[in-house]
Amino acid sequence: MSKIAFLGGGSFATALSNLLAKKGHCVCIWARDEKVVNDINENKRNSKYMKNLKLNSSIYASCNMKEVLDNADYVVFATASHVVRQICEKAKPYMNDKSIIINVAKGIEEGTLKLMSDILEEEFSNPVVVLSGPSHAEEVAEETPTTVVASSKNIKYAEKVQELFMTSYFRVYTNDDLLGVEIGGAVKNIIALAAGITDGIGYGDNAKAALMTRGMSEIIRVGEKLGGKKETFFGLTGMGDLIVTCTSMHSRNRRAGILIGKGKTMDEAIKEVGMVVEGIKACKSFYLFKEDLGVSMPITDMLYKVLFENKDPKQGVHELMQRDKKKECY
Amino acid sequence: MSKIAFLGGGSFATALSNLLAKKGHCVCIWARDEKVVNDINENKRNSKYMKNLKLNSSIYASCNMKEVLDNADYVVFATASHVVRQICEKAKPYMNDKSIIINVAKGIEEGTLKLMSDILEEEFSNPVVVLSGPSHAEEVAEETPTTVVASSKNIKYAEKVQELFMTSYFRVYTNDDLLGVEIGGAVKNIIALAAGITDGIGYGDNAKAALMTRGMSEIIRVGEKLGGKKETFFGLTGMGDLIVTCTSMHSRNRRAGILIGKGKTMDEAIKEVGMVVEGIKACKSFYLFKEDLGVSMPITDMLYKVLFENKDPKQGVHELMQRDKKKECY
Repeated sequence: MSKIAFLGGGSFATALSNLLAKKGHCVCIWARDEKVVNDINENKRNSKYMKNLKLNSSIYASCNMKEVLDNADYVVFATASHVVRQICEKAKPYMNDKSIIINVAKGIEEGTLKLMSDILEEEFSNPVVVLSGPSHAEEVAEETPTTVVASSKNIKYAEKVQELFMTSYFRVYTNDDLLGVEIGGAVKNIIALAAGITDGIGYGDNAKAALMTRGMSEIIRVGEKLGGKKETFFGLTGMGDLIVTCTSMHSRNRRAGILIGKGKTMDEAIKEVGMVVEGIKACKSFYLFKEDLGVSMPITDMLYKVLFENKDPKQGVHELMQRDKKKECY
Repeated sequence: MSKIAFLGGGSFATALSNLLAKKGHCVCIWARDEKVVNDINENKRNSKYMKNLKLNSSIYASCNMKEVLDNADYVVFATASHVVRQICEKAKPYMNDKSIIINVAKGIEEGTLKLMSDILEEEFSNPVVVLSGPSHAEEVAEETPTTVVASSKNIKYAEKVQELFMTSYFRVYTNDDLLGVEIGGAVKNIIALAAGITDGIGYGDNAKAALMTRGMSEIIRVGEKLGGKKETFFGLTGMGDLIVTCTSMHSRNRRAGILIGKGKTMDEAIKEVGMVVEGIKACKSFYLFKEDLGVSMPITDMLYKVLFENKDPKQGVHELMQRDKKKECY
């Protein structure tokens, strides 16, 4: 049995912790919020992020990072993507050489366009594995069937993580295209926001399917440009994650989009969703780098205008629907 | 302005007729059911198939096929796929050489695995264009944004059909991969039935996204084998139509699947949906030809067992989730 340290005590960290603890592993959660820590230790609950789950009694939480990281076989980065760099700094003094790092944060670093694995590899010399795919935390906690991908530059570490997490309801595949796996997870949040906006406006399933189809093209264009493999984008971490994020009410990105489509401002939407909306950050990051990337990202462009330049969402979607050339091509 | 003859008076025929009539074209609908014909002519409604739509006053319906086909510039085949052959026989004596045939029926001929365009090309020497894509009739009637593809072996006919149907809310692209366009439209009904079953069982969005992702692989494998182009399957008539059919309550295939997932038999589900469930027919057709095709169709196989061999749906989905190899590959 292994010791697994979770950095972050949000909903996905909670669901995965419980899965591993039930498999008999020793799970330790670091969280910044003392209330969350106490709730986990005293009540075996994380009421703030996952109300209905009774946690396995062996799970332990702490605000002390040294204690959590001490002797860990695996360290799971499970925070919002924009704080990963800062958590790295905090973790650095206590990280063991033998720990395998697992990243479940999906996003891109603002101002650098670096992926989470790039940051982790810059900050540590430990092996990095990314765990990604269509996996809403609530459903993992309910133990309904879920499939994800473990990816690493060295497939042997991906296989270790596969072995670690695999259960009858949580299937883990491996894929050695780390870049492709991470890019899919980051860019889909942009498309999910836009899909939410079409829902919020009151457009139907036809319009959303069209947007998702064109969104998939956008993911592939950016993804290939950044070095990912096309086939990865058609897999669980690309198309699969795109579908789940664009169609599920569990998705914060989609929910934020719905609010914006109904006329709320970006700030009002963020406040109402009450959690980090990764798609907003990803949209800004990609928009600022679009010249460097040199690929067409019409959905990202339009979303940026809606979010940051007060463009009317309905007008934005309308222009997007009108802009494509008349011949279907990829 | 053109004369357009619709063979079939169902929901999609009604929505498209109204779109064309509003553009000023002369639209004539042939329907077998005298009640539907009278309702269209007397009340400018098709209450049986599309309750809430007030039809353009210029639309005319008839049970007399000769009258409807007479001098038509375009003839739209808009029936369930299993009656297309029989409608061809009926139309043959009255079809003009100058008519361009448009097919909107999605499916495959039982016992031959022929596509609708194959049948139409066998029966007539007229040019054939297929109009397909994520386009629920109800939403076309409501004039919410919709995108579809017009496809033909000779692109010039596809462009004519594009011109004919295009409006600000109904965007038509062209694609010369007729085979690919039609196969996507036929096979996705199988995946939608299976997706409905996972919904009916009560599995979540994670499971459905996984099924749709693997379903997409199945469409590509079969589609390429039959001669379609890979990129077509990632477009509106492949991925786009798959998404809309698997996620919308407008989809009969999905609704039938939900009922089966909840424990109803196939016959009970068909009866309750009250319309043709194309996915059931497509599943049977592909299953019977799987030896000849020589490609892996695990979802089709499992669905066949659930539909025709009383396999427990939950057990079926469970086995499907378990069967894939541990490395993600395509």
